[in-house]
Amino acid sequence: MAYRAPVAEFQFILDHVVRLGDVVATDRFSEATPDVTGAILDGAGRLCDEVLAPLQRPGDLHPARLENGVVRTSPGYAEGYRAIAEGGWVALSAPAEHGGMGLPTTLSTAVNDMMSGACLSLQLNPLLTQGQIEALSHHASDEIRALYLPKLIAGDWSGTMNLTEPQAGSDVGALKTRAVPNDDGTYAVTGQKIYITWGDADFMENVVHLVLARLPDAPAGTRGISLFLVPRNLPDAEGRPGVANRVKVVSLEHKLGLHGSPTAVMDFDGATGWMVGEPNKGMAAMFTMMNNARLGVGVQGVGVAEAAFQQALAYAAERRQGPTPLGDGGIVGHADVRRMLAGMKAEIFAARAIALSCAVAADMGTATGEADWTARAAFLTPIAKAWGTEVGMEVAQQGVQVHGGMGFIEETGAAQYLRDVRVTAIYEGTNGIQAMDLVGRKLADGGDVAWRLLEEVEQTAEAARGAFPDLAVEVWTAAEALRDATEWMLTREMTDRFAGAVPFLRAWARVLGAQLHLAAALAEGGSGPRSALARVFIRRLLPEHVSALAAARAGADDLYALSDADLGA
Amino acid sequence: MAYRAPVAEFQFILDHVVRLGDVVATDRFSEATPDVTGAILDGAGRLCDEVLAPLQRPGDLHPARLENGVVRTSPGYAEGYRAIAEGGWVALSAPAEHGGMGLPTTLSTAVNDMMSGACLSLQLNPLLTQGQIEALSHHASDEIRALYLPKLIAGDWSGTMNLTEPQAGSDVGALKTRAVPNDDGTYAVTGQKIYITWGDADFMENVVHLVLARLPDAPAGTRGISLFLVPRNLPDAEGRPGVANRVKVVSLEHKLGLHGSPTAVMDFDGATGWMVGEPNKGMAAMFTMMNNARLGVGVQGVGVAEAAFQQALAYAAERRQGPTPLGDGGIVGHADVRRMLAGMKAEIFAARAIALSCAVAADMGTATGEADWTARAAFLTPIAKAWGTEVGMEVAQQGVQVHGGMGFIEETGAAQYLRDVRVTAIYEGTNGIQAMDLVGRKLADGGDVAWRLLEEVEQTAEAARGAFPDLAVEVWTAAEALRDATEWMLTREMTDRFAGAVPFLRAWARVLGAQLHLAAALAEGGSGPRSALARVFIRRLLPEHVSALAAARAGADDLYALSDADLGA
Repeated sequence: MAYRAPVAEFQFILDHVVRLGDVVATDRFSEATPDVTGAILDGAGRLCDEVLAPLQRPGDLHPARLENGVVRTSPGYAEGYRAIAEGGWVALSAPAEHGGMGLPTTLSTAVNDMMSGACLSLQLNPLLTQGQIEALSHHASDEIRALYLPKLIAGDWSGTMNLTEPQAGSDVGALKTRAVPNDDGTYAVTGQKIYITWGDADFMENVVHLVLARLPDAPAGTRGISLFLVPRNLPDAEGRPGVANRVKVVSLEHKLGLHGSPTAVMDFDGATGWMVGEPNKGMAAMFTMMNNARLGVGVQGVGVAEAAFQQALAYAAERRQGPTPLGDGGIVGHADVRRMLAGMKAEIFAARAIALSCAVAADMGTATGEADWTARAAFLTPIAKAWGTEVGMEVAQQGVQVHGGMGFIEETGAAQYLRDVRVTAIYEGTNGIQAMDLVGRKLADGGDVAWRLLEEVEQTAEAARGAFPDLAVEVWTAAEALRDATEWMLTREMTDRFAGAVPFLRAWARVLGAQLHLAAALAEGGSGPRSALARVFIRRLLPEHVSALAAARAGADDLYALSDADLGA
Repeated sequence: MAYRAPVAEFQFILDHVVRLGDVVATDRFSEATPDVTGAILDGAGRLCDEVLAPLQRPGDLHPARLENGVVRTSPGYAEGYRAIAEGGWVALSAPAEHGGMGLPTTLSTAVNDMMSGACLSLQLNPLLTQGQIEALSHHASDEIRALYLPKLIAGDWSGTMNLTEPQAGSDVGALKTRAVPNDDGTYAVTGQKIYITWGDADFMENVVHLVLARLPDAPAGTRGISLFLVPRNLPDAEGRPGVANRVKVVSLEHKLGLHGSPTAVMDFDGATGWMVGEPNKGMAAMFTMMNNARLGVGVQGVGVAEAAFQQALAYAAERRQGPTPLGDGGIVGHADVRRMLAGMKAEIFAARAIALSCAVAADMGTATGEADWTARAAFLTPIAKAWGTEVGMEVAQQGVQVHGGMGFIEETGAAQYLRDVRVTAIYEGTNGIQAMDLVGRKLADGGDVAWRLLEEVEQTAEAARGAFPDLAVEVWTAAEALRDATEWMLTREMTDRFAGAVPFLRAWARVLGAQLHLAAALAEGGSGPRSALARVFIRRLLPEHVSALAAARAGADDLYALSDADLGA
């Protein structure tokens, strides 16, 4: 069945769970009135349902391909992209002075979620451009901003991020691409970059690459990395894309999924580039955009989970296999199938609400300048990224399972979600890297943000004590266990923390998800479908925090007690 | 890197963990001496490493295809199959009187595991034939046995199972294929069957279909199903494949994985068939072979997990990304990567040992005729099937994750394991069906087998109290929790049981896995790599039984408190 953007669900979460109202009450975002918000969600929903969702299968069946140096895109993608750009959807949150709408990141996060569910391969293109707009807004010179931002914001040009090299992935400090100063203030950039999403497209007037590279005298490691802007076509004085730069797509990857999204190996051969930000401070500039990009990837997972869930539910409503406790209807009436579907729905709500909480914190930080909000957004970002994408994978797996044998047949479309979403747990920092960020940098404040979040969980549990006494106790208890584990983490060396980082992040997602479910149940008035879903989450999924915390606190000794040879024996 | 069959691992598990020796001590299997067993494992290992593993990628890249009614198989598959057949590997456990080797199922299970890791697409072919040999041995007439078994056992002909129809999957009783008696004692079989694995092959002299169908006067549902043997070519008096029968491959499915294994839609158009077993007792005949087939699918999951693990470990040893606690070597030195790899290895050991325990119980049942052994095998079968395949999926997912970005690129091969193994959780009874079998039929004895198994877990924990006091306590405690949950299950209606069946099965796998790890650690003498691995499993993975049991005991009310409309809202 066709994907339908869950507009009413976003409206509910924004209004009642993550309190977009607080964001709108600030001067900075006062234009995001309920009318505007409603119109944005409705408009994005229509775009997704009518224009983007129909591109999901064609992109898979007719992958982007390289033809005489030109990236030929999947059927309908040019038109789909034009609808995105012309609707102003590339840059909802971009600064107004260059043509953006200046709306909260919370709204663009909701729209990114919808667009990911409709067609992840195409959605990646504007997502990357959003990241580039963010980086240039904060770090580029006035000239570059004036020339590039209007083009990027209008969607005339798209942006890419060029970090990875064959020997430099998670260890980005190992990169070797070099940038040598020219006489005119520009740089000659030379090197090979891999995994460049939407490295080129036949429908794009210009493609602007942000490239991490080293100056000739740069120190080793991440302290010697600078950031360069390298357009595919060098703009002329009027900003028209002019002559071709010395950059080309060498090949496209043959991937498990996302066939509609061309993933390029890029060759820079003395390409003309402009430095963005300070010499050797490229990593700082990348980090600016990275928090937002990571949140964007998190909701990619959520969006795909939504689409996979909708398809599985529709199948389960139609498919009949014997009598169920609800009669002779679809298999959705069977307890085990219902368990899967209710669990999928509960996971999606939780992961989505965590991501939108993170976005609200980011917006509040932007609007108020208060460090507490910024720190909260920074803490929630690795959770939103890793957990959203874990839920994407898990729900897509269950979506296939609900389909039974049909799930293994590609025409059904269930398997495509599984294939497409798989990389979201890897790119933009693997989920392991996210978890290490959480137990490392994000606990470097001694746990300040963690304690504040846990207090809020306890407050929600307290507030729910009347309406849901049993659930309130479980959430409270879980928060206490998570507090203990967080205190334990703070006493340990990094290797011990890293050995438990992934399950620790999982436990955080479980507890925060439970809180947000309780909040939704309370907002509903204490009974109804959201309360029932909260019960499913808290009784069936929250308990996983126990096992996750056991693994989180296992330390590293047992892992290193096995030698490399033991592992291979 | 190339897959290497873990011959020494099988030898250890068979000798020290699941006690193949008890099987060999019976008259029935006295020929399976240590020399014979060692030779079988070594020979199978060589076949897998040298002949089958090289076929893994070609099958994926060059799928089987239908060409003018003929199923053209992947490059090298004909030669690979010939090596399997000529080596006598189709029918290690088949009855000696028709040319089989009459060896224990435990050994053929080990060989199936290895062959699945080497090339699952091709391994499916002899696995199906094994099931057919089993069914015919128990239920077919002397004439059919005399004619067909030697051909099947020699691997000259292959066997298929034809159960599923478009509207009859998990609800097999809904099938509509009809069998009308002819004058000569044969039947005219008419209907369409789907998902027929290896429905045909260009390298196969004859293909023998076992088909579930209804006699004209048959009662509705599963009580009106009979079993028919329908060969592609009708054998002449000398047993040579003669004229073509009225059966054909209509189309092949385009699947997520297993591209080398042709999955056919079969059309029977008044095809000549012979009844196997009694009229309307086809389900009973199918169940005979199903326990073995389910065990066979369980080790498919384990075998793929092994291959995915080996590849991930090799990659992690080579791939360098920054300094690790072990120095500047491969990423296997990073705590989070090591956590994944150690966890994968621990899961594989546990799932494999559970499957081999199940096989030993089946062999003991065959050898002794004791109902206790047969009941134990029946209890362990759904666990072995569902858990082996869950581990297959989970380890393949982690294998991709260890590869980082490379994992998403098809050339790497890591993603193929993920794609190939996905269907093992679906076919031969979905894992949900397995779990319902466990909480339903397999607890119908009032828990007799469950209590015996839990007593043995406690005995192992008791024996380990000296060498591993902390681990022994955890295993003991987990067994008690599982006993409570099993008692709870026995008091509940089926809908409540089914609502918690999947997590209940998961908890059983965790506890049995922990026991088998402890047994291995004790067999090693109380210290060494198996003890270290047992610690990883018991401290990081066993605790999951807590959350699984919470979900297992949640009952069904919360699921049905959500209406169908609520799920779709």
